Amino acid sequence: MNFPSKLIEQAVNAFEKLPGIGKKTALRLVLHLLKQDVVAVEQFGDAIVRMRKEIKFCKDCHNIADHDLCGICENPKRNRSLLCVVENIRDVIAIESTNQYNGLYHVLGGVISPMEGIGPEELTIASLTERCGKGEVKEVIMALNPTIEGDTTIFYLSKKLQSLPVKITSIARGISFGGELEYVDDVTLARSIATRLPYESYLVKGDG
Amino acid sequence: MNFPSKLIEQAVNAFEKLPGIGKKTALRLVLHLLKQDVVAVEQFGDAIVRMRKEIKFCKDCHNIADHDLCGICENPKRNRSLLCVVENIRDVIAIESTNQYNGLYHVLGGVISPMEGIGPEELTIASLTERCGKGEVKEVIMALNPTIEGDTTIFYLSKKLQSLPVKITSIARGISFGGELEYVDDVTLARSIATRLPYESYLVKGDG
Repeated sequence: MNFPSKLIEQAVNAFEKLPGIGKKTALRLVLHLLKQDVVAVEQFGDAIVRMRKEIKFCKDCHNIADHDLCGICENPKRNRSLLCVVENIRDVIAIESTNQYNGLYHVLGGVISPMEGIGPEELTIASLTERCGKGEVKEVIMALNPTIEGDTTIFYLSKKLQSLPVKITSIARGISFGGELEYVDDVTLARSIATRLPYESYLVKGDG
Repeated sequence: MNFPSKLIEQAVNAFEKLPGIGKKTALRLVLHLLKQDVVAVEQFGDAIVRMRKEIKFCKDCHNIADHDLCGICENPKRNRSLLCVVENIRDVIAIESTNQYNGLYHVLGGVISPMEGIGPEELTIASLTERCGKGEVKEVIMALNPTIEGDTTIFYLSKKLQSLPVKITSIARGISFGGELEYVDDVTLARSIATRLPYESYLVKGDG
């Protein structure tokens, strides 16, 4: 693509580095910004740079935060005996959006994956065992993605935590709401039968 | 969506205003930038703000430019007797990408559209007639989108220019390369038969 201006080319190249954005989309975004007020575009650039520069990570749960502790760890109304272990910040946002969980989180920063060179020491596992050793946490909920790496990580964490007085649970795996049995994979279907629950338990709201 | 940080929320809101980007995509882009170096993110913000602040429009053809004249108008190798009238900057980039056209452009900035309240005075028509009146331009190629508004604008422009010694042509309309006759709409198919060309003309490369 030949650009009529170096400035446009630089802006398009900047957008193009973002995931899922190709050259044509980048150009469309740049020409959109070109039509906006200078002030609006400055606010756009400023919001992004400030976010990157000023963002902090919660020293307890490693979630993103505006201060030393994140809003969830700071909140006195949250249940401090429940700890939900997730892979990344997006999972925290997804669970928070359900408005059904009232405990705390622990963001691992990934899962153990020898293929990608991620070992236990790359993750925030030391800080998890430290938190669990303080006596406040009663239950650790493993909310990792149901993949080989996720399951390996859960197995590793359960071994690490087994000497501590915490109950280890995992989020339920089974057929999604709205899913159709005939299209579900064999592993999920077999598991969902093996881990069947009494019907009454579906009527009870979570205690999280 | 509940965001764990005001800074993240502001950055997501900034991205969300861009066309075709929803909340989930915006969050993915923000979390991607969060993983980049501070310097890289500053360059990203800077490229966009500088582009908006420093961009100029060519005083001859109204294309975007880094100086008073755009790179195309400045280029002494371009054919100054040919003028291609297009709706917007994206069309200039599209035609330039073909590497087949060697004349100059004139960016109208839109097409006449009473429905959207765009009349002839909103477009750069006065500057087009002025350019055509200087005697250098011999042919004006209308390269507007084949819509009602595009056709109306071509009709209006041809009336405006009819007293001047310039030839007015329009880009060919017909079946796209790779298109299938049975799926082409009636208007295009009927037109492509009515405006059929001698076979030899397909073998000749454009003189643009």
